[in-house]
Amino acid sequence: MSDTWPITEDDLLPLSIGAALLGTGGGGNPYVGMLRSRELLRGGATVEVLPLDALPDDAMIGEVGGIGAPVVGVEKFEQGEECLRAMRAVEETADVRMSALICAEIGGANSMEPVLTAAQAGLPVLDGDGMGRAFPEVQMTTFFIYGHEAAPAAIADEKGNVLVFRHVKDMYWLERFARDASVAMGGAAGLAIAPMRMDFVRRVAVPNTMTQALNIGRSVLAARKSRRDVIDRIIADTGATLFFTGKITDIKRHLVGGFARGEAVIAGSGDHAGSEARIAIQNENLVLWVDGTPVLMVPDLIVNLDLETGEPITTEVLRYGQRIATIGLPAHDLMKTAQAMQVVGPAAFGYPDLTFVPLPWKETAQ
Amino acid sequence: MSDTWPITEDDLLPLSIGAALLGTGGGGNPYVGMLRSRELLRGGATVEVLPLDALPDDAMIGEVGGIGAPVVGVEKFEQGEECLRAMRAVEETADVRMSALICAEIGGANSMEPVLTAAQAGLPVLDGDGMGRAFPEVQMTTFFIYGHEAAPAAIADEKGNVLVFRHVKDMYWLERFARDASVAMGGAAGLAIAPMRMDFVRRVAVPNTMTQALNIGRSVLAARKSRRDVIDRIIADTGATLFFTGKITDIKRHLVGGFARGEAVIAGSGDHAGSEARIAIQNENLVLWVDGTPVLMVPDLIVNLDLETGEPITTEVLRYGQRIATIGLPAHDLMKTAQAMQVVGPAAFGYPDLTFVPLPWKETAQ
Repeated sequence: MSDTWPITEDDLLPLSIGAALLGTGGGGNPYVGMLRSRELLRGGATVEVLPLDALPDDAMIGEVGGIGAPVVGVEKFEQGEECLRAMRAVEETADVRMSALICAEIGGANSMEPVLTAAQAGLPVLDGDGMGRAFPEVQMTTFFIYGHEAAPAAIADEKGNVLVFRHVKDMYWLERFARDASVAMGGAAGLAIAPMRMDFVRRVAVPNTMTQALNIGRSVLAARKSRRDVIDRIIADTGATLFFTGKITDIKRHLVGGFARGEAVIAGSGDHAGSEARIAIQNENLVLWVDGTPVLMVPDLIVNLDLETGEPITTEVLRYGQRIATIGLPAHDLMKTAQAMQVVGPAAFGYPDLTFVPLPWKETAQ
Repeated sequence: MSDTWPITEDDLLPLSIGAALLGTGGGGNPYVGMLRSRELLRGGATVEVLPLDALPDDAMIGEVGGIGAPVVGVEKFEQGEECLRAMRAVEETADVRMSALICAEIGGANSMEPVLTAAQAGLPVLDGDGMGRAFPEVQMTTFFIYGHEAAPAAIADEKGNVLVFRHVKDMYWLERFARDASVAMGGAAGLAIAPMRMDFVRRVAVPNTMTQALNIGRSVLAARKSRRDVIDRIIADTGATLFFTGKITDIKRHLVGGFARGEAVIAGSGDHAGSEARIAIQNENLVLWVDGTPVLMVPDLIVNLDLETGEPITTEVLRYGQRIATIGLPAHDLMKTAQAMQVVGPAAFGYPDLTFVPLPWKETAQ
């Protein structure tokens, strides 16, 4: 296990870049959260990152994150304490105090939300998360997949509204109620789920993902600085596999029930000249087809990088003419069990005919 | 003030008929609630009706009711303890115990909900309500009009889901969140609002409306039994004014955002032959026009009675060819202040150009 480390101002940029990459196009852009975190750190707040073996079994862990369509998160800034108020409502309802916070998803903006809330509450964050990536729905975490109760959870908005999901039949109902409330709240809100015991979190969280995001971000920054072979360097550092390079020729996006759904079409270039790729999107990149054949799909990670800078491109800023590299990273084993497949496999996203063939792990330079 | 009286099995039918009349076409059909109440009374439950001066100032009063489109309530039966579970969640959150329950609205099915919940919880109900009629939205009670806080409130469904509205900006946000949740819950659910002190309830509740509903129902039953001058007898007993008699020639109804909206057109008969009336509906009858002139509107009560039987006709069972009498009853003075007009006047229902001219009170035989 890794050691305890404090998040410094210098960590924030690489952390946000790594989180954006692990966001697989979704999870919202972590840039605003990064600026807000920097402000808090400059104001004297400190946030320690603890390995999963640091706290006793009966410590209670809070999971907080933003909920809403990423495209709204770009326009509608948070008041700043949505997740904190949601977490306080859960603490009050469950009559517990949290000892640490953990990310629902390391991918995208939700990598920063527990850091912000931890800075406000004076708590540490854990080095891990519930996805090892980003996914669009509340139930799609290892916490819920492996049996965490759906209630009490709470949602808060920037206007002061706080709703407590006091008794909820299952994680799908929590997703439904929270999604509806987030839409009523204007499309973006802060969600806190029921407290989890540390021994449960240790068993089911995807471990070391804060560290992983930080390392990925550092790798992207170093590759970009070198100004050559940017994509190759990132691939070598992260253990990713290159699937496609090309130019976006079509992009469709629409907001459906609080989600950004759509599709991108990419015309191949370089080694892929003459081929066409297609990516299905629900906030995140779900499935990659090359010349009509599905080659990569959830729960494995499909990431679009700017071909020149290596910058991860979130789905809400994809645009016609962008030149990108599409790379793949394997999901954590906890996301690929039969139990997990029911919640985050291709069928759960509306592709029952796709058979998941996992991307193998590769050795990395890190 | 009236005395305390127990609700007997014999009271249930007239009570439900009177409540249907005061429902002004909405509030849901109280018939199912009547059957369920009868079952509880036959099973040994007792429910006392207390006048508003019976309890001390600091007694805490609960208000419970069903929320959802009436047309759904007809199809989707309650599990039976939705309102009880919502009330328990409010008690737990606010850390109080209710001493008695009161109706949000005496009109329609919500006249029976507090009786059912009271029977289940072993509590009395108060002789009064928050409307003196039925209205489609949560904030449209004298309780909220005169300043009751919007939180903590709670909503429960038949599947076991319970949501607590822990902090809510105002009564309009409560309506929005509760309406959305009721739609997610399948179109019908039980709602309990924040506990109210008895001195507040005594000051703002529309008084004696359980007694009024019972008396109206007895009058309708007696008139129907006599088999002649049914409408005239009901009018004489209740102090109502006859506005129109005729046959329904057109009826439009559609479900919009959890509400039944629509319009009925009536061709005049008898004294009204050659005239045409039109009624706008949002769950309840909102405005009555005769030959294009608005003659009766919210917050005053617009009621359609079956011309033969005097049975109040709820908007969800209005149909082509029905022969009806349209009568009016004045709203309680608490519903006609400037403060109330902002919440339940014509403008609040989308008719900013209509000037409310109150229907005068009449002496009644009762």
